[in-house]
Amino acid sequence: MAQQHLDPPTDPTAGPVCGDALAGYLRTQATEFLRALRQHRETGGDGGPPVRTKPRAVENGSQESVDAARALRRSARRISGSLHTFRPLLDADWSESMRPELAWLSGTLAREHAYGGRLERLLGALNRLSGSAAFPAQGQSAEPAGSRTQPSGNLTVGAAKAGALLDRQLTLARTRAHSAALQALGSSRFHAVADSVAVLASEVPLTPAASAIDLRPLAAAAQDRLTDAVTALPLVTAGHPYNAEALVHGLSADTAPHPQDAPWHQVRLLLRLHRYAREVLYVGDDPVDVRLLGAGQALNRHRDASEAASAAASAARTPRIAPATAYALGVLHADQRHEVEAARFAFHQAWQKEAVRTP
Amino acid sequence: MAQQHLDPPTDPTAGPVCGDALAGYLRTQATEFLRALRQHRETGGDGGPPVRTKPRAVENGSQESVDAARALRRSARRISGSLHTFRPLLDADWSESMRPELAWLSGTLAREHAYGGRLERLLGALNRLSGSAAFPAQGQSAEPAGSRTQPSGNLTVGAAKAGALLDRQLTLARTRAHSAALQALGSSRFHAVADSVAVLASEVPLTPAASAIDLRPLAAAAQDRLTDAVTALPLVTAGHPYNAEALVHGLSADTAPHPQDAPWHQVRLLLRLHRYAREVLYVGDDPVDVRLLGAGQALNRHRDASEAASAAASAARTPRIAPATAYALGVLHADQRHEVEAARFAFHQAWQKEAVRTP
Repeated sequence: MAQQHLDPPTDPTAGPVCGDALAGYLRTQATEFLRALRQHRETGGDGGPPVRTKPRAVENGSQESVDAARALRRSARRISGSLHTFRPLLDADWSESMRPELAWLSGTLAREHAYGGRLERLLGALNRLSGSAAFPAQGQSAEPAGSRTQPSGNLTVGAAKAGALLDRQLTLARTRAHSAALQALGSSRFHAVADSVAVLASEVPLTPAASAIDLRPLAAAAQDRLTDAVTALPLVTAGHPYNAEALVHGLSADTAPHPQDAPWHQVRLLLRLHRYAREVLYVGDDPVDVRLLGAGQALNRHRDASEAASAAASAARTPRIAPATAYALGVLHADQRHEVEAARFAFHQAWQKEAVRTP
Repeated sequence: MAQQHLDPPTDPTAGPVCGDALAGYLRTQATEFLRALRQHRETGGDGGPPVRTKPRAVENGSQESVDAARALRRSARRISGSLHTFRPLLDADWSESMRPELAWLSGTLAREHAYGGRLERLLGALNRLSGSAAFPAQGQSAEPAGSRTQPSGNLTVGAAKAGALLDRQLTLARTRAHSAALQALGSSRFHAVADSVAVLASEVPLTPAASAIDLRPLAAAAQDRLTDAVTALPLVTAGHPYNAEALVHGLSADTAPHPQDAPWHQVRLLLRLHRYAREVLYVGDDPVDVRLLGAGQALNRHRDASEAASAAASAARTPRIAPATAYALGVLHADQRHEVEAARFAFHQAWQKEAVRTP
């Protein structure tokens, strides 16, 4: 083993990569977390305020605060993922108590960002579906375009009303998520997480055996979990363009999210864990795997479109809306379900590409 | 020329094909027309009655009458197309007066069939979108499925109401088209067409020069018109799956049919003329060109989906409909526009295949 320890940890083909590499990775991520937290506090922690008057004209300080929140989420996800994949190397009690807290934190911080992105996606789609000039973008004047005053223009009025309804509902949700995030960052629960991460930055609680455990089989197991989940996906259907699968049950009475989306969301999470495991192995020298990158982007798009479609369907259940508004929301829902289908096709295309290198 | 006339007319590679082949083709089509007309009269000429109680259980006599009407349209289109493509061989006055009458006849007969097919397509799509058991098929009991009584089931109620609305509107349109077709077949205008076709069955009004005019350059010109029109199509976009092009302006205020569909409809007509010209050349021995077949089927699907999407959008403009109905019609509209896009992709795929043989 002593000889193998001389192998550089950045080349996983040369021999086992052990506890030191994991400790180094976790320390780096913890340091990133603390830096992001400091930046978030310095910039007021009031990132991307859902001010209705000029939501796009985010001020410098706020943009920095948004970036800081993103960096916080980024390192929290990586720490949590590494704790999961490389469990046998870490103190079990500490690890078990840490993971749900990190999940709570990144989930709370992600929500505001998600509502903002969803609104932008839906308004963008309404714009595209209405012809570029017919519908005001978010935050712009809602003055009706000339065509909308024509008697035949009720469907475009519908698009405008649908946009206003979604703007109202998702901006409210975003505002609430923003307050919740601020409240979370001021809570004693968060301070406990931050303290734990501060300890992690200097001293990683490895088990005594960690220095002799090879990380590579653990990383390989994470990859196997991903591969198994991908194998279970309906990839033959997804690879056949225009299979019309994503809109099946598009009008069913079930208001829950599409059950057919769940395995894809699961693959998205497993892909992320696989990517983080690679980061640990290739410390600071991770070769960009175009295949994983493309597959991951497709799954992000899948998730975003799936949630946007749900938001459109949910808005259509608002009481007392006009038929033209409901019609526009129906078109929008179907459009986003097509996006879901397109994202699955894109994932299939990316996944078919030969793997560049696997750990 | 005398030597070349000995070449069998069924082999266009062997030499020019002249007036005789055209005369033979027109006589055959005219005979088909007269046979179909006789069959239509014998079966009561009351094909596919839009009876609301059992529209699918068409009786034998009616099915025969539907077949007869289809055969009438089939030969009317072929005569009209040949008159157009091989104009220089035919008496100009006769030809010019005949074509609009044949177009009127096949258009009138086609309408009833089209409304029936459109309704079937839309109800089939609603079924698919609602989950298989949630929506009663046309003519079945409208008793609500269990899920629809749940409070969250308003969207499925919407699908059922949308189906009932479309059934009402398109069945009415079909009934009117049926009456119009019956009226047309009893009119003196139709009797004049039938008399002209009866003359054509025995004596084709060729020009004196017809026996020396080669049909092949005329058929090639028809093919060139098709090829030029295909070249002008946005095929690069159509060949890229999920380009989302067909739903652009899906919510625009313009109630007219999608202008982006028109070039595709035009190619559909030119493809038909090309196919009929081939039939004249390969009398009775037309090799089935899989490429043309696939391309033609894709363009039929394109036309059907385009018109079904318009019908859904038009139904959504019915005053005083419930928001849930309008929502379902919006989903349905987008679904059919997606079908339009899928049909363009299918056309691109079929067209890319190497031509088996061209005249």
